[in-house]
Amino acid sequence: MKKSLGALTPAMPLPVWVIGSYGGDGAPCLMTAAWCGVCCSEPPCVAVAVRNSRLTHANIAARGAFTVNISSERYAAETDYCGLVSGRDTDKFAATGLTAVGSELVDAPYIEEFPLVLECSVQKTVELGSHTLFIGRVVDAKADTAVLGENGMPDMARVKPLACSPADRNYYAVGRLLGGTYSLGRGLTGKKTDDNNKERG
Amino acid sequence: MKKSLGALTPAMPLPVWVIGSYGGDGAPCLMTAAWCGVCCSEPPCVAVAVRNSRLTHANIAARGAFTVNISSERYAAETDYCGLVSGRDTDKFAATGLTAVGSELVDAPYIEEFPLVLECSVQKTVELGSHTLFIGRVVDAKADTAVLGENGMPDMARVKPLACSPADRNYYAVGRLLGGTYSLGRGLTGKKTDDNNKERG
Repeated sequence: MKKSLGALTPAMPLPVWVIGSYGGDGAPCLMTAAWCGVCCSEPPCVAVAVRNSRLTHANIAARGAFTVNISSERYAAETDYCGLVSGRDTDKFAATGLTAVGSELVDAPYIEEFPLVLECSVQKTVELGSHTLFIGRVVDAKADTAVLGENGMPDMARVKPLACSPADRNYYAVGRLLGGTYSLGRGLTGKKTDDNNKERG
Repeated sequence: MKKSLGALTPAMPLPVWVIGSYGGDGAPCLMTAAWCGVCCSEPPCVAVAVRNSRLTHANIAARGAFTVNISSERYAAETDYCGLVSGRDTDKFAATGLTAVGSELVDAPYIEEFPLVLECSVQKTVELGSHTLFIGRVVDAKADTAVLGENGMPDMARVKPLACSPADRNYYAVGRLLGGTYSLGRGLTGKKTDDNNKERG
């Protein structure tokens, strides 16, 4: 029996990404986002929803670029801080001690200390109401070599990113490995295939 | 020192949601999605990217509705299975033993056994290339009472949703609580506020 909660978005788990952009004065800015995700393979794109009143909204609209900086547990406080205060009155890089690196590929800064970064050029802008969805084409992904797995790609157990749940207003660590994608459910496929063969037989 | 990985989307952690829709024949269909997220507050919206060749793509385009079914660890195999096979040749509800419930609010079915469900009406459709981004307005969120926390909203530690990382192709459990949103970083704000006061003083 399910209880109706109303027209709300208590969805989970959500990523916690810090968005990098340049202000009108060229100052590097940061904003923490949970309303974001991957949205296309070809071209490779991510989507980040930004409230219209945010400085980052004006920055991305003006420069047509942003970075996605994927946090790690050790930077949990810095990550939350970047969602607590506005870049209008605070230099978040100075306040957190994080280091801004100017991307050579897009007109936005990224965070040196974060283990995984996507450099994005705005592909589409979708007005939704309180928020604008910026769809960024990933020009390059960069990772610390220490977080790369055997396949040469970032390994979530090494990146140790944050997950959040707006419904209970908490950040969580990523936990234990449950199994491989396109793999965990093969038992069910097998059974089904056998049944199919039987039926076909 | 960061290593360039190329124009890819090794972003993390990503949610694992099972999307419910009706086929042309009225059959309830399921598709596992990781390229999805929340994207607006007013109106409350979620975005789900669906590859153009998928049955779910045709279903959502035709009916203008879908459900987001948020999985739980105990349904990890069923969840993966719904991304392994096509609804064109398989009744995934029958194969997994999951129960389809027809939403009374939108033209789509949801999964009785999953702890948290969002019923969505398509608000916008954005063509991106290989994928279409369906932006759904949440008409209602429904949760099992067993997963509700003290604030009456779903508690991630009770829902036990899956997180995934396409880069290392794995599903993970959500792990330990790190702290509250708009709370963990207050220490940094405090310091900054003191500095500000000092400057202003």
